[in-house]
Amino acid sequence: METKIKSTAIFNGKVIRVTKDEVKTDNGITAVRECVYANGGVAILAFIEKKLLLVKQYRYVVGEETIEIPAGKIELGEDLKLCALRELEEETGYGAKQIEKIISFYPTPGFCGEELHIFLAQQLYKLPHPKAMDEDECIEVMLIDPNEAYQMIQQGIIKDSKTIIAIQQALLEQWKGETSC
Amino acid sequence: METKIKSTAIFNGKVIRVTKDEVKTDNGITAVRECVYANGGVAILAFIEKKLLLVKQYRYVVGEETIEIPAGKIELGEDLKLCALRELEEETGYGAKQIEKIISFYPTPGFCGEELHIFLAQQLYKLPHPKAMDEDECIEVMLIDPNEAYQMIQQGIIKDSKTIIAIQQALLEQWKGETSC
Repeated sequence: METKIKSTAIFNGKVIRVTKDEVKTDNGITAVRECVYANGGVAILAFIEKKLLLVKQYRYVVGEETIEIPAGKIELGEDLKLCALRELEEETGYGAKQIEKIISFYPTPGFCGEELHIFLAQQLYKLPHPKAMDEDECIEVMLIDPNEAYQMIQQGIIKDSKTIIAIQQALLEQWKGETSC
Repeated sequence: METKIKSTAIFNGKVIRVTKDEVKTDNGITAVRECVYANGGVAILAFIEKKLLLVKQYRYVVGEETIEIPAGKIELGEDLKLCALRELEEETGYGAKQIEKIISFYPTPGFCGEELHIFLAQQLYKLPHPKAMDEDECIEVMLIDPNEAYQMIQQGIIKDSKTIIAIQQALLEQWKGETSC
């Protein structure tokens, strides 16, 4: 346990909030904790004809294109399932008849309070008029065999935490997806 | 691709650096990117008599105790393998005769540039006089069967990204560890 002594607001952005806190640890030490908070996000594991639905996009902060499962930020008060369906639609143009949460996790609990939630979407179908993605997003949809995706993790081509967790989970649980409608 | 137009320094801490950048996207939009940078870290997947070596500690920013594989921040210019051995020693009191990198990944490429590197440590041995951990760290060492650890992920007891990735990888590759010396 660590008890807050003092919290100093550093930054209140659109995506993140940063504070610098002074805490007292269980062994009586006073320590500084730099903290990043974000609304949290959802990510969607989905298959189209036994292939993983992935998206490629440029990620400015790491300076490269990444291959990820579709994902997005939770809007304030938004239901997580509806958020997952919204992001799936905006990023890929697909809808899903079934969606359930499979894993929630902390990407970086050392300094970031954000929690991500991975959903398994099933019974996918192409939407005739999908909602557009955010105007500052440029996203390319990809379909990749799960075993090939696993090799891409080992080769350092897929490097995003939620995507690695989802692919590994799919292989361990032998989810292979269903034919889309 | 996104091109930097302007970068504003927000915070230069001990662990993180934060900037707010203005970028031009490929489709000609000007967008804001809030960026968190950190030195990066290493994490160690290790077995003692076929059980996973884990550590439990309080993580202030998420407000709870987490169960994680041993890990720590890379010091400036530090060799990654030596960093992994140092963190293994400080957090658990163990040394390893063999250590190799298995996966590098980005926990949160949406807003954080940090990269983590997971190492597989083999041929573990108890060190007679291990280096002490940082004075603001309170860490409890745990040994857990890998299949039980996988169940703990499904139950939401293990929630840390690097730990989930390492456990899933160990199960997929059927790494079971060796008897410690």
